Amino acid sequence: MCDICVIESVKARMLSRRDLFRGAAASVAVGTVAATPSLAQGARRVVDLTHTLSPSFPTYGGDPGIAMDLVLNFAENGYNLNQISLAEHSGTHIDAPLHFSADGTAVDELAMGELVAPLVCIDIREKVETDSDAMVTPDDVQAWIDAHGEIPEGACVAMLSGWAARAGGEGFRNADADGVMHFPGFHKEATDMLLGTGAASIGVDTLSLDPGNSADFAVHYSWLPAGRFGIECLAGLEEVPAAGATIVIGAPKWAGGTGGPARVFALV
Amino acid sequence: MCDICVIESVKARMLSRRDLFRGAAASVAVGTVAATPSLAQGARRVVDLTHTLSPSFPTYGGDPGIAMDLVLNFAENGYNLNQISLAEHSGTHIDAPLHFSADGTAVDELAMGELVAPLVCIDIREKVETDSDAMVTPDDVQAWIDAHGEIPEGACVAMLSGWAARAGGEGFRNADADGVMHFPGFHKEATDMLLGTGAASIGVDTLSLDPGNSADFAVHYSWLPAGRFGIECLAGLEEVPAAGATIVIGAPKWAGGTGGPARVFALV
Repeated sequence: MCDICVIESVKARMLSRRDLFRGAAASVAVGTVAATPSLAQGARRVVDLTHTLSPSFPTYGGDPGIAMDLVLNFAENGYNLNQISLAEHSGTHIDAPLHFSADGTAVDELAMGELVAPLVCIDIREKVETDSDAMVTPDDVQAWIDAHGEIPEGACVAMLSGWAARAGGEGFRNADADGVMHFPGFHKEATDMLLGTGAASIGVDTLSLDPGNSADFAVHYSWLPAGRFGIECLAGLEEVPAAGATIVIGAPKWAGGTGGPARVFALV
Repeated sequence: MCDICVIESVKARMLSRRDLFRGAAASVAVGTVAATPSLAQGARRVVDLTHTLSPSFPTYGGDPGIAMDLVLNFAENGYNLNQISLAEHSGTHIDAPLHFSADGTAVDELAMGELVAPLVCIDIREKVETDSDAMVTPDDVQAWIDAHGEIPEGACVAMLSGWAARAGGEGFRNADADGVMHFPGFHKEATDMLLGTGAASIGVDTLSLDPGNSADFAVHYSWLPAGRFGIECLAGLEEVPAAGATIVIGAPKWAGGTGGPARVFALV
């Protein structure tokens, strides 16, 4: 590391402390305890895979996903407190099996060993550059396997399309004149292939597990009823390696939910 | 400074620290990426520190903390989707500095290095057996330090009172005939002491950082305005060691929130 970098590093560290003072592998679930041999490899960094959720964050349907009402405020009441109205599938969020099945697993019932799990990152950014409707195909999955080995037990298989960079604007939904959205997603043949592996979940950096122009939600209607779950609107995947990271999926634990905003980290 | 320089800088610093303080761990946030040397020790288990949130889960004020409205259902609409109404401070949840200050840090702004952090667990179950108003005192903090060394940088210092076992019923709020609640919490002298350490957050397995019979919210009004945060209604602390675990605090990332339900794990 260069001298300037050292100086900048020390300054950054001091600033963060000043802000503080100023105010500013396989996983096996055992009850509430899950074994996580994958962590034994020794993580060194945490990457935040979560977008900030606000009323302006794009949603699949187009309506605001969250509204906050400051019902008590510091000046008059001595403290601040909001009442929140939330569309379950807003921001970086979980699709539980119950979202697309009559009686599937609810978001609070997801297995612990699938919430702290190996992260498989499949990079399709190159084909997305010329095709907003690009999909993760069986060939993409096979290429990952050829390079890194079998999909680990309990894994989250995430699509890195580069779409997260668009989250601030209309380019995220990318609707055409007919209102049809165009963004990448998984091809059903790829998720059918993953059903034959240890993968427990899939993740996308777009608004839907299916591509934006899907007319039939083929992935939603096959992957979720099979008891697997999904994560939509992931951020930060460009910061993680293709293999070897651990994803920590902070799924909301509200009873009977079909999903909900989650805080998601990668331990790299 | 380039990302690699930051990472190398943090790694180098952590390695030298590890030589000095074996077992202690520090975390420093760098943008959306934080170093986590504590994980290098090799976690083997994940413990869920989160209660399931439902309308019957006890709240500080007594009103239900969550209501879910199934606005679309599988039989008629092809999929299930809820609209959720949420009191921010419900279930296992964060108290951000903004909760008890005019313009403190909001829940989406909490530093990454403080969300994946060393977990300090202070067990006061023995005194709680005979006193529901028992508190974590400076002596309890000192006893932990005498046994395990300095409070690690960025640590979450959690009170294990045994109260989580009561979360299913009225015994959790434990209100007397006058409506005064009786449950354990932190003594302000203990959190004042912690302000002089690297602790970034405190956690309790009860409904409040202050004890239930507090008339002045002394801990809320000193700890939170100092830029530190809290976690209330933790579960599962009896499953973690006094020292050496890593807490992963899945704080909600909604913009401007004063707190909110969080998914919290311990990596042991």
